[in-house]
Amino acid sequence: MRDVFSFLPEERVLLDREDLLLYAYDATPADRRYPAAVVRPTSREEVVEIVRAASRRGLCLVARGAGTSLSGAPLPREGCVVVDFTLMNKIIEVDEANAFVAAQPGVVYEELNRVLAEHGLFFPPDPGSGSVCTLGGMVAMNSSGIRAVKYGTTRDYVASLEVVLASGEVLRLGGRYRKSASGYDLKGLFVGSEGTLGLFTEIGLRLVPKPSHRAAMIAGFHDFNAAAEAIARAMRARTDVAVLEVMDSRVVKAVEGFSGIHLSSAEVLVLAEVEGFDEGVEGEMRRVARIFREAGAEVELAHDEAEIAKLWKARKAALPALARLAETLLLEDITVPVAALPEMMRRIGRIAERHGLRIATFGHAGDGNLHPTFLLNDEEELERARAAVEELFRECLALGGTLSGEHGIGVEKRPYFELEHGKAAQIMRDIKRTLDPQGIMNPGKIF
Amino acid sequence: MRDVFSFLPEERVLLDREDLLLYAYDATPADRRYPAAVVRPTSREEVVEIVRAASRRGLCLVARGAGTSLSGAPLPREGCVVVDFTLMNKIIEVDEANAFVAAQPGVVYEELNRVLAEHGLFFPPDPGSGSVCTLGGMVAMNSSGIRAVKYGTTRDYVASLEVVLASGEVLRLGGRYRKSASGYDLKGLFVGSEGTLGLFTEIGLRLVPKPSHRAAMIAGFHDFNAAAEAIARAMRARTDVAVLEVMDSRVVKAVEGFSGIHLSSAEVLVLAEVEGFDEGVEGEMRRVARIFREAGAEVELAHDEAEIAKLWKARKAALPALARLAETLLLEDITVPVAALPEMMRRIGRIAERHGLRIATFGHAGDGNLHPTFLLNDEEELERARAAVEELFRECLALGGTLSGEHGIGVEKRPYFELEHGKAAQIMRDIKRTLDPQGIMNPGKIF
Repeated sequence: MRDVFSFLPEERVLLDREDLLLYAYDATPADRRYPAAVVRPTSREEVVEIVRAASRRGLCLVARGAGTSLSGAPLPREGCVVVDFTLMNKIIEVDEANAFVAAQPGVVYEELNRVLAEHGLFFPPDPGSGSVCTLGGMVAMNSSGIRAVKYGTTRDYVASLEVVLASGEVLRLGGRYRKSASGYDLKGLFVGSEGTLGLFTEIGLRLVPKPSHRAAMIAGFHDFNAAAEAIARAMRARTDVAVLEVMDSRVVKAVEGFSGIHLSSAEVLVLAEVEGFDEGVEGEMRRVARIFREAGAEVELAHDEAEIAKLWKARKAALPALARLAETLLLEDITVPVAALPEMMRRIGRIAERHGLRIATFGHAGDGNLHPTFLLNDEEELERARAAVEELFRECLALGGTLSGEHGIGVEKRPYFELEHGKAAQIMRDIKRTLDPQGIMNPGKIF
Repeated sequence: MRDVFSFLPEERVLLDREDLLLYAYDATPADRRYPAAVVRPTSREEVVEIVRAASRRGLCLVARGAGTSLSGAPLPREGCVVVDFTLMNKIIEVDEANAFVAAQPGVVYEELNRVLAEHGLFFPPDPGSGSVCTLGGMVAMNSSGIRAVKYGTTRDYVASLEVVLASGEVLRLGGRYRKSASGYDLKGLFVGSEGTLGLFTEIGLRLVPKPSHRAAMIAGFHDFNAAAEAIARAMRARTDVAVLEVMDSRVVKAVEGFSGIHLSSAEVLVLAEVEGFDEGVEGEMRRVARIFREAGAEVELAHDEAEIAKLWKARKAALPALARLAETLLLEDITVPVAALPEMMRRIGRIAERHGLRIATFGHAGDGNLHPTFLLNDEEELERARAAVEELFRECLALGGTLSGEHGIGVEKRPYFELEHGKAAQIMRDIKRTLDPQGIMNPGKIF
């Protein structure tokens, strides 16, 4: 392997098993998968060389940023070389006049937003792993988080892409303009392609003004139907919410036990936030609170930044808090049409019952994205969970949903991909083959 | 031809030359192109039959809605059969709870919005031809209009698509969910594909709440730089404008002469609109007016619906007013990064001078989309205009722009497509070949 990548300095070609261990897993509970080697490019030219070298030898390549994937997308298949993009971490240009930024794929999400804030700009998708995850991974997975209900997902912000294809050719897509009706949306095809179509060497993002004010509240409901009805009413009343997070009582209790913060004795909790550019956010939050109270909720408004911070600390504690209650967590990521949320919650309850499993559910109620989380103590429970997960997916699809809201397909959901996409899965494979006839780009992912 | 489509009733297969004449042109100044036949399906099943019949005989198919294209996209190449979708004009379901509508491709834009308004919903792309153009054409061309600065383009609203492929297979893409990270964005690939990848039989759109209030104003500037600076300031001040239209003095004078409405003696005019759900729109409009005045504009606020209507009558008169000043108009549709607008305007001026041509320019200043319109009196001017158009495109691309903001490539911009896309054009062709190996779907368009 050393000679394959002899054009790279020695310290940027990793071959030792202890080095490779760091690249043998992501955030998914899965067996370790060691790559054959890890290369750490610092420029587009090096990426082109890497792809050419790999293509000549039929070696497969797996792009990797921070390795925070929850679907196994950056896990190398046997014999694959991991391309670690974390050294390509420069912000190339902040173009204030066009509300645009060009950056290398290894830039970390929150680091980018720290720099953009100095220009009054904001890249809003806000994935849970934002403090460490990289732009390349976000674009590859079309990631998003709690703010998607207002701002959409990464896809909505990718203005331009520079991609190295399996052939070693460099493709430049999109630009700094705000709209175009010129040809197929190739750029959009690469967003969410999970590294299977090419490697990103530069990412251009369109940005929005950074909100300066926010207000938040917490609302307790006696059941999920009541919460869903309140959310639907708030939406019909054209409230401008930026966040609408839901947690079931299992999550609430876990968070309370973990953080010591008393949240609520309600069965279902909704956290809401409004953000904007002036004090108007307070009035808007009170309007949401009024609608929620009319729908039967107990509402508490956060009165200052400290109280807002407390709410977010509680929400962000959900996963670590649940992790204390079990040996392993299996975190799922389904999305249904918002109107189907109550029915999906009922079906999750029935699946838990049928399989004798503990499922704690939290998620982004505003856009129908739920994270049913299986609390598992042993192999036998894990086995039962696998059957339950398949049912979960079938129920989600039966309600007109999609297998993933933000984590992607990776290796985890591959077995169910055709269930969702049918004939379209074949077309995707055909396109993959057109762009990567040798199949060297992240094989074994998505389909 | 009659026997090829014998499964259709006779009155829905047009073969007479006088019938075909209606399908031999669109809104582009181009020579008539007669189709070999016109078929008028009423169901998905018939569309599948049509595609199968065409594929068996190697006949090419051209989808057509209202024929309002400004790029020649629905003009049939020699021997092609036009598939007229205007009989497939049913709104299938308005799903209020999910802010979603399913419709057939022949539904007219404004007709859809009339029905949606009863549900408090809105599909906002607002193309200039909205009173007659159809959804199928809008999706095929990724069309948009004056509201794109706030709401984006058709692409941003397509939630699901049913497509009949060249093979006759039916593909179902997307759904009623608000986000997904499951596989390649095939749906996005079909949006803007100009009928070259398949025929739409059902379109699902995600919708936004219909605004109930609006406010408008008109601002006069002594030159384009001043207007661009005012717009940039308004953007930096996070004003929420829904419309930012610009007209140069040639357009203003034409409109005044045509409509009798005195607009301004300024060199450049900007029309702005703010819309929302309460009287707050008035305050926001005044805020924009203040920023514009500080930037040196003469501003007049519209004080009621009648005054707003007058402004819009003036703006909508731009094209017919210009049409009175010349034998032929050549309407262009370039988009540059917003910060490059003043420089693009200067270059348009120089091109007009160099070629001794009259160019009147109006457009959507908020998103960098300009419609330089050539006023032409004879063949010789048309010849010179063709050379000038090529320069226009080269200058636009040199400034980081794109060939089309909303009209598409069609036949008109084909010669310049590779200039914009380079290697990406080849990838698009490869994808086209993968989906349509016989090349029967609208050949001779885009590339």
